[in-house]
Amino acid sequence: MELSSTPRTTLHRHKERGQADPGELRAVLDSGMICHLGFTTARGPVVLPTAYGRDGDTLYLHGSSANGAFKTANGQQVCVTVTHTDGLVCARAVFSHSVNYRSAVIFGAAAVVSDDDERLHGLEVITDHLVPGRWAAARKPTKKEMAATSVLSLPLDEASVKIRAGGPADDEADLALDVWAGVLPVTVTFGEPEPDSGSAGKPVPAHILQRTENRPAAVR
Amino acid sequence: MELSSTPRTTLHRHKERGQADPGELRAVLDSGMICHLGFTTARGPVVLPTAYGRDGDTLYLHGSSANGAFKTANGQQVCVTVTHTDGLVCARAVFSHSVNYRSAVIFGAAAVVSDDDERLHGLEVITDHLVPGRWAAARKPTKKEMAATSVLSLPLDEASVKIRAGGPADDEADLALDVWAGVLPVTVTFGEPEPDSGSAGKPVPAHILQRTENRPAAVR
Repeated sequence: MELSSTPRTTLHRHKERGQADPGELRAVLDSGMICHLGFTTARGPVVLPTAYGRDGDTLYLHGSSANGAFKTANGQQVCVTVTHTDGLVCARAVFSHSVNYRSAVIFGAAAVVSDDDERLHGLEVITDHLVPGRWAAARKPTKKEMAATSVLSLPLDEASVKIRAGGPADDEADLALDVWAGVLPVTVTFGEPEPDSGSAGKPVPAHILQRTENRPAAVR
Repeated sequence: MELSSTPRTTLHRHKERGQADPGELRAVLDSGMICHLGFTTARGPVVLPTAYGRDGDTLYLHGSSANGAFKTANGQQVCVTVTHTDGLVCARAVFSHSVNYRSAVIFGAAAVVSDDDERLHGLEVITDHLVPGRWAAARKPTKKEMAATSVLSLPLDEASVKIRAGGPADDEADLALDVWAGVLPVTVTFGEPEPDSGSAGKPVPAHILQRTENRPAAVR
């Protein structure tokens, strides 16, 4: 199945960067950490960084019950974007400069998850998206904590994925210029886990080591 | 001068993370690489990753003249968000998990820059934001290239900055739990510059070395 082409997901610029394979969408989402949630208010659009996770074709976003954003977004059209910056592309001409990136832009109607079981499941998906295995290791939420937690769900059926990779694409006429051209690769890495005072000296659990030994945003 | 508090920038959640110092806003913007531009269309909100640069109290965003996004955003209220993810905060309780981050959320009326000199200046600001010194090194845009380039400007006078740093904040009662807690630090780094085929063997210029030897998103 290819990603649907709708008026919102049809690319107008750099169509060659478009990816119709839903596996690419999943790859971009699964290797990210936070998304940017866009929603519309009476005062204009708002874009907020938000933790998320993916379960099959559903995206779950994490918020607080006191979060006005989710109340506003509930039942409304939203746009959720996940972007990886992979490199700065320096060409010989200013005009030909670019950025290597992978981005997913998802459109749809957001819904605050009202079912208790699904909200708990969504929270597990988000927690294990950020640190796989963390849900099993940590104390589970109480009823009071769940009441203070809000989860927003969004279907993944209307999305576009764009990927730019590789070196600069200078015009033929510029290749003779005496200007260094190439890519400055950008990577996201984890540092050594930093235990809090109560965990100092304790062995770092396997799920933490596994997370920090892998790059969160694996370059394809 | 403190950052203004307007209905859009007044924080409702985790007010202690708010920063009223405009220097913090500049620091978050200047250490980022791309922003997320949110604007409203007849079909709902759209959030797109976009290259940007800052000159004083003006933000410039880079696009193509063929870019429908800038045409739609021109004269309209937009929201531009820049986010750094600095760490994943693992607490003993799922509920107390968090993310260390620095974010700037800017609201205002966007304007496509119509003046040729300002558009050229905006492009210089954006180019040197991504790779300082690059503008001087590369071939400047022709008139034809400038006609194909669009720059969106946005004032920085309505913005909010939030920063979360430090370790987990478990409830007192959870501190006795036998769960490792701490922070997984996240950093953004540059790899070795990768020259294209025409630049292989050429010395890497100082401005490129300087960029890649520094972390793009310096943690405070």
